[in-house]
Amino acid sequence: MLRKLLVVISLFIALGISAQIERVEPSFWWIGMKNTRLQLLIHGTEICNRKVIINYPGVKILKTNRACSPNYLFVTLDINPKVTKAGSFKILLTEPEKSNLTVSYELKNRQADSWKRTGFSSNDVVYLLMPDRFANGNPANDNVDSQPEKANRSIDYGRHGGDIKGIKDHLDYIKELGATTIWTTPVQENNFNKYTYHGYAISDFYKIDPRFGSNAEYVDFVSASHQKGLKIIMDMVSNHAGIWAWWMNDLPFEDWIHQWPAYTQTNHKAITTKDTHAAAIDKKRMTDGWFDTSMPDMNQQNEYFLTYFIQNSIWWVEYANLDGIRMDTYPYNDRNAMAKWAKAIMDEYPRFNIVGETWLSTPQDIAFWQKDAVNPLKYNSYLPSVMDFTTERAMETCFNEHGKAWEDKGMNRLYNSIANDYVYPNTNNLLIFAENHDTQRFNHLINGNLAKFKMAMSFLMTTRGIPQIYYGSEIGMRGEKDKGDGDIRRDFPGGWAGDSINAFTAAGRTREQNEYFSFLSKLLNWRKNKTVIHTGLLTHYVPENDVYVYFRYNDREKIMVIINNNETDQTLKTERFAESIESKTTGTDVMTGRTYDLKNELTLPKETTLILELK
Amino acid sequence: MLRKLLVVISLFIALGISAQIERVEPSFWWIGMKNTRLQLLIHGTEICNRKVIINYPGVKILKTNRACSPNYLFVTLDINPKVTKAGSFKILLTEPEKSNLTVSYELKNRQADSWKRTGFSSNDVVYLLMPDRFANGNPANDNVDSQPEKANRSIDYGRHGGDIKGIKDHLDYIKELGATTIWTTPVQENNFNKYTYHGYAISDFYKIDPRFGSNAEYVDFVSASHQKGLKIIMDMVSNHAGIWAWWMNDLPFEDWIHQWPAYTQTNHKAITTKDTHAAAIDKKRMTDGWFDTSMPDMNQQNEYFLTYFIQNSIWWVEYANLDGIRMDTYPYNDRNAMAKWAKAIMDEYPRFNIVGETWLSTPQDIAFWQKDAVNPLKYNSYLPSVMDFTTERAMETCFNEHGKAWEDKGMNRLYNSIANDYVYPNTNNLLIFAENHDTQRFNHLINGNLAKFKMAMSFLMTTRGIPQIYYGSEIGMRGEKDKGDGDIRRDFPGGWAGDSINAFTAAGRTREQNEYFSFLSKLLNWRKNKTVIHTGLLTHYVPENDVYVYFRYNDREKIMVIINNNETDQTLKTERFAESIESKTTGTDVMTGRTYDLKNELTLPKETTLILELK
Repeated sequence: MLRKLLVVISLFIALGISAQIERVEPSFWWIGMKNTRLQLLIHGTEICNRKVIINYPGVKILKTNRACSPNYLFVTLDINPKVTKAGSFKILLTEPEKSNLTVSYELKNRQADSWKRTGFSSNDVVYLLMPDRFANGNPANDNVDSQPEKANRSIDYGRHGGDIKGIKDHLDYIKELGATTIWTTPVQENNFNKYTYHGYAISDFYKIDPRFGSNAEYVDFVSASHQKGLKIIMDMVSNHAGIWAWWMNDLPFEDWIHQWPAYTQTNHKAITTKDTHAAAIDKKRMTDGWFDTSMPDMNQQNEYFLTYFIQNSIWWVEYANLDGIRMDTYPYNDRNAMAKWAKAIMDEYPRFNIVGETWLSTPQDIAFWQKDAVNPLKYNSYLPSVMDFTTERAMETCFNEHGKAWEDKGMNRLYNSIANDYVYPNTNNLLIFAENHDTQRFNHLINGNLAKFKMAMSFLMTTRGIPQIYYGSEIGMRGEKDKGDGDIRRDFPGGWAGDSINAFTAAGRTREQNEYFSFLSKLLNWRKNKTVIHTGLLTHYVPENDVYVYFRYNDREKIMVIINNNETDQTLKTERFAESIESKTTGTDVMTGRTYDLKNELTLPKETTLILELK
Repeated sequence: MLRKLLVVISLFIALGISAQIERVEPSFWWIGMKNTRLQLLIHGTEICNRKVIINYPGVKILKTNRACSPNYLFVTLDINPKVTKAGSFKILLTEPEKSNLTVSYELKNRQADSWKRTGFSSNDVVYLLMPDRFANGNPANDNVDSQPEKANRSIDYGRHGGDIKGIKDHLDYIKELGATTIWTTPVQENNFNKYTYHGYAISDFYKIDPRFGSNAEYVDFVSASHQKGLKIIMDMVSNHAGIWAWWMNDLPFEDWIHQWPAYTQTNHKAITTKDTHAAAIDKKRMTDGWFDTSMPDMNQQNEYFLTYFIQNSIWWVEYANLDGIRMDTYPYNDRNAMAKWAKAIMDEYPRFNIVGETWLSTPQDIAFWQKDAVNPLKYNSYLPSVMDFTTERAMETCFNEHGKAWEDKGMNRLYNSIANDYVYPNTNNLLIFAENHDTQRFNHLINGNLAKFKMAMSFLMTTRGIPQIYYGSEIGMRGEKDKGDGDIRRDFPGGWAGDSINAFTAAGRTREQNEYFSFLSKLLNWRKNKTVIHTGLLTHYVPENDVYVYFRYNDREKIMVIINNNETDQTLKTERFAESIESKTTGTDVMTGRTYDLKNELTLPKETTLILELK
């Protein structure tokens, strides 16, 4: 208790405010934002009847709103872009017969051309990692007083100690691999007594979890990444928070979160939100039911929360200098609110990118969530990028099977997953992947078959979209989801002092690990500057005999990709592809350097993807 | 050869035309059609240079076009609705230094209010039968001189002798069953040496196959059906014709059909027609490839053929007094041409109905083909009704399995198939079915389990859409597609003289057959006047514990349907359905008459669908 009090006092001292104002969020802001409005959440004991006064040139209070709890005020400012200068001012809260409260507030200058920042795109390859499981750069923050869950590597769902410094220490590794963008699972504070390693139960939306590092360390990590040419995607969660979120004992509004008479879990039936026949109770359970007992469901329909969350997202982009956002559990949110959220961010940063987790079954259901999708509900999400789970599902099995011409098996699966692209407004802005932190590990699905790994990665790196790989796959890491999420989120070897293998270096890797790494590194580094892959057109052919052929092309270049999914060499007659090959006569395989004559037929090595640069 | 010559001569005599004019199609037409234009195909030896002269008040020749073959003329008339009277006139074909040719042509009066005809709808239950396999009403036409394939009941793909008279003789049976509409597979002539029983290789689009009967017999059959309150749907095929179609030896145009250097089959990849990445050759194979060696692929992009086909369809509607059209292999046609086809018919008969065979995988792919569907390609098919193959596929397995809440198994399959209805512009106009002449027999899929049959039919008759049943299922008929199409198209017992069982009568049916029939007959007859089922709204609930609950309701009535797919009785608490039950307190099961109290919970018999009328 004493310790807690000391923490509170020191916090107040740090913020330089009276003991009665406990929080102002966002804790600072910027001048020159496109949206000149700013909603301040002010939290302090019994402040609801106070009048708010600000005297600062260009800053005007538009309105002050009480909440349900007496301990909140929501103050909406307008910050005149022509008049307001960067600097600090006092916010004064007065009430008759009470002493005044003041809090200092800062408006900062933005970085030059901040609005022009370019998000991740199909030019990039995204490396997804879990900070707790990648590398423990600073053992000193494995356990911190403020957080009850302590590090314990022996528990697969425990905290293992990985942190931001661990990632920063290995940026060169990621760069060598050829990835150009890092997506970390959430680094925001997850204050809870267990299961906090994954990060999706955020307890403080403005704070990096101290076991990962500080806010300043995160900013520094982004900056260091940028210096190496790596972009950073921050993982965010609007659908739910952690049960120990700071506001849970004193909710501003009753409907700040979705409350139920008894714990009610979401039914995970995303279709109810579109279904014209759905019972009202089922729709409500989908969007308002809780994801888990430890994750209260946030109410995006509460305007104050929505504005709070929009500002929080923009705050991180501006503060940490982000290149992208990954938004969790997209269809579980109120979709109209999310459209406002995405639009607000994209209005502020028109070249930015946001990818939503759209874990749905069909291309149409996924496309529904992409900006400007044509759909019967006339919904526009304003979300630029969605996750192509159709292709992911195809990849789960297609390299382990062979089907008849009419069966959705083998290469037909890959073909079909791409053939429905007409439903997407922007296929270049689809995140494509063979796995992520929630799916089976791809190397497990293919039973560690290197040939299949190579086939799959060659496809992923040459089809349309933004390829995303999952940490560890590049060294053949495996794991089974059936054994628990922990097994697909194992520690990266070499990330912890004393690890028997250090896979961050060629010398430390096993021969097999090096085979995986070398292949993928060569492929990704080749892809880096291949505009024809980033944005070229794609023409593909109905697979025959489990061989899938497609072309990527633009005015200057032409690539022919041939996936031979058979366990034997095959002969391919090129005549059928004449409309794509046109006058080209040879193709040189990117990975082997071998040149193939395209005039009649070519022999395809078994279980191999050829990536031929045509001449 | 002599016989063939005699046939030709007698044909000419019958038509009353000179030996050099072999065909005029349509062979007659009507005054007072909304579309006043009429394209006559005139076929005769070396007629291409002749001038066409018609002298009849109100009939004007708009243009006369030569084809590629010298033996055709396409003459486009305008028939002035204010001036033209019904009657016959001569069409005169002149050419210098040749004797004149004339042909008599008739314009008839339409039936009163022909344009107002109301098509089949969700008020109806459709009974699909194969005329060759239903009943042999006239053994005298089993074999006819003009058709090479003779009847042979010992061959499963042979002709068995069923005919139009056989159907007409059993209209009372169909009526007793409670079906209100009959869809017969094609009855148009299939002149070929084998496999003609199914009817989908049409050799004369204007002629009933003589083994089924004559044109006049078909008209009489429709009339007799109407007298018993039964509607008739004619099956049509625009995608292909039979290899012995009369024009095959003298094609009007080279592109009247799709020709290939060597036989090229369709790739059956419907997605290529939408896929922005599809290779041109793959798209071409999909729409222009032949369905079978015996089925040349018609070119709907040839304007003369398209007009010919549109007129042929309208001709049958007007001539035979049809209530609907079922169009084969819809996505294999040129979709823009088919939009013109559907629009032309619906313009002529705005209350008519046409259902297209849309054998596709997803609700979105099927919905694409329904009139006014919202889709990224901005395509409008003008086709009012499509086939809900999603629900059919769900029914294939859902009664044989039980799944976890998150699995697409059991009742979740049914729920999911309905939950995507938002993609359809008109869900009442979906043809729904558990089977048809191309799928597995439903009674085979459920291994002859009567309880499952009842559950399934109760669903089919109470969900949204137009239920279609398949002949024989009402008596538990089985068959396996894996043994060949013939096995799912067995002869109806009692349709042939000497059949050991006559399932057309209660006395002739086995006890088990009567159990099937009685149940379905009671259900269908109950459905006949249930507006709440025909057009009521539908609210459904996410299945829990493999129990699927939904409501049909309108201002006057409310039905609660509960499918308990478990092999044990279940208890259902009604509280969750309060928003639908509202103030109702009891529900009486339509099939058993038993009344259930809805205030707290009710006991659901195992493997049973309750259809409760609420009070």
